[in-house]
Amino acid sequence: MIHLKLFFNKYICGINEKNIAMKRTDIATLGEFGLIKELTKNFVPLSSTIRSVGDDCAIITPAEGKKMLITTDFLVEGVHFDLSYTPLKHLGYKSVVVNLSDIYAMNGTPEHITVSVAISNRFSVEALAELYEGIELACQRYGIDLVGGDTTTSLKGLIISVTAIGSVAPEKAVCRNTAKVGDLVCVSGNLGAAYLGLQILMREKAVFEEDPNMQPELNENSEYLIRRILKPEARKDIIDFLSSQNILPHAMIDISDGLSSELFHICSQSNVGVVIEEEKIPIDVDTYNQAMQFQMDPTIPALNGGEDYELLFTMNKKHEQAIIDSGIDISIVGRVTEPSEGIKIKTRSGNLFDLQAQGWVSF
Amino acid sequence: MIHLKLFFNKYICGINEKNIAMKRTDIATLGEFGLIKELTKNFVPLSSTIRSVGDDCAIITPAEGKKMLITTDFLVEGVHFDLSYTPLKHLGYKSVVVNLSDIYAMNGTPEHITVSVAISNRFSVEALAELYEGIELACQRYGIDLVGGDTTTSLKGLIISVTAIGSVAPEKAVCRNTAKVGDLVCVSGNLGAAYLGLQILMREKAVFEEDPNMQPELNENSEYLIRRILKPEARKDIIDFLSSQNILPHAMIDISDGLSSELFHICSQSNVGVVIEEEKIPIDVDTYNQAMQFQMDPTIPALNGGEDYELLFTMNKKHEQAIIDSGIDISIVGRVTEPSEGIKIKTRSGNLFDLQAQGWVSF
Repeated sequence: MIHLKLFFNKYICGINEKNIAMKRTDIATLGEFGLIKELTKNFVPLSSTIRSVGDDCAIITPAEGKKMLITTDFLVEGVHFDLSYTPLKHLGYKSVVVNLSDIYAMNGTPEHITVSVAISNRFSVEALAELYEGIELACQRYGIDLVGGDTTTSLKGLIISVTAIGSVAPEKAVCRNTAKVGDLVCVSGNLGAAYLGLQILMREKAVFEEDPNMQPELNENSEYLIRRILKPEARKDIIDFLSSQNILPHAMIDISDGLSSELFHICSQSNVGVVIEEEKIPIDVDTYNQAMQFQMDPTIPALNGGEDYELLFTMNKKHEQAIIDSGIDISIVGRVTEPSEGIKIKTRSGNLFDLQAQGWVSF
Repeated sequence: MIHLKLFFNKYICGINEKNIAMKRTDIATLGEFGLIKELTKNFVPLSSTIRSVGDDCAIITPAEGKKMLITTDFLVEGVHFDLSYTPLKHLGYKSVVVNLSDIYAMNGTPEHITVSVAISNRFSVEALAELYEGIELACQRYGIDLVGGDTTTSLKGLIISVTAIGSVAPEKAVCRNTAKVGDLVCVSGNLGAAYLGLQILMREKAVFEEDPNMQPELNENSEYLIRRILKPEARKDIIDFLSSQNILPHAMIDISDGLSSELFHICSQSNVGVVIEEEKIPIDVDTYNQAMQFQMDPTIPALNGGEDYELLFTMNKKHEQAIIDSGIDISIVGRVTEPSEGIKIKTRSGNLFDLQAQGWVSF
């Protein structure tokens, strides 16, 4: 609670430059090259990094015998994040994590990232330093290395572009197009929390805008939901677990746009159908309670909420017991069917409905 | 001339949606995944591309025994380009080429790129298709493959983020920090043309804004200068030539910010000095004439103009004759000196002056 109070104060004011007490160094005083040097001074290179920030290119040693994985994501202010309730450190952390999640979703190991930022002149060196603190924290936690990027001016707002590079043994890469009929459909963690966290932040922002002396009144249960939207984690632990159990999923994808949407990607690319059981969809008790408070069916954010960065995968039925015995937070939510059977959800009441990719038609 | 007239008409009007005759498909009609499919339908994968656009990551096979090179650049509308005189096809081409130039500047071979675009809703599918035509043309010409990216909404304008991935044999990588005292300083092509091309476009835009019925009146000599700013090439041919002659430069950088600025990078990273001879700096006759018309010393845009994407390198003196005999457009412009000697230019009149990194103090 205190944490949230702090950043509502600091960031709405800090970014809008109302908080004159905050130290503010103009980026122009450092110049582009000085800025990059300042922001990346604490980063520790990996042994596979031969040359990092400061040349025309980074030079890295590819992992021997492995294939390379490449993924990239844009985060645009006003589209993907709102700085009035997003601490820059969290944003830096998240901008890395969402890319790592894509590498794990191929069953790979992320190793290097580049980070480009376009900023308007309202950003100070201190603000950017906070962003890079979050980037550095993600690099430390996931054992990866920042090797390059670009820093430039934007006409409006903050734009972040991250590219992640990783590796995978050729026989271990897991794509979206290789689900097999009869597979079990599995989901890590729980779904819908990030969406509800976002709803809470948007509600509190509206209250704050009405009266800037009001600070968010949040109960303890909100903290988990807000953390899920502001500071998600990528499920490295799930990839490690699957590897330790010699479970190679047939198809895998990370859940960034909601379970429904990701199921459609796997089904259309693999040419299969799927049936999901509503009662098996993992929903945290805080998500459930918050949905109830918003008078919303908790299944809806779980299916369509997005931004959960959990893993969705299909695997051979023979691994079912290993998953159950392990006690790890992987839920078996359904099974892969013939393509003619379509993409279905079996409700708690036992009825079978077509799943919708965007916006689930309530029933 | 006709070409320039056309795009002044088409793009100022087309982008601002005044040209109602032009076909315009709203991006919303395709959706993100449909759009990506449409834009990338003509791209032909390389044999090293195992999985391309359409999964969480691209999968590529790294070149055996090579190191990987990674570089990334942002291009922001209103900062790096002005759509009132930049055809989108040219912009797509250039956004790839500027990244390839960085790979060549390490003496490497580019192989794969990712392209992310953030667009406001004034862009139609047709406008984006033109951008991707240029990207595709660059991919074809340089033998590279588009393997991924991200497409999203921007709050304002067009933002392009390209990451290029290439390879280089470990013993062939050329960095900025390895120039040696006694080296010759070499520059490919000629300098200052892109800067003067930009000045012409800005002048013509001002004329056009005064009276939209006026079309640019350009002489033939302008065409070369305008091409240099709107559709630069990366100097693959220089890298191929050096390789064929077994010339391994000691230090290399591409000239994106102007010769002066790049010399400072090499000198500070290599801890050396340099002396450049003004009369040896390669300046095209069109650049010379246009500078005269603008009443500007032609050496100034050549030193500080930027955006030429030529290569600046230092090499052992023993290769001098091979360069001269080949007749290739590489000019030997100076030599590397002890760091205590500083960064100097010897003028046509024989005087020695300190070179300035940004903005050359005229003398």
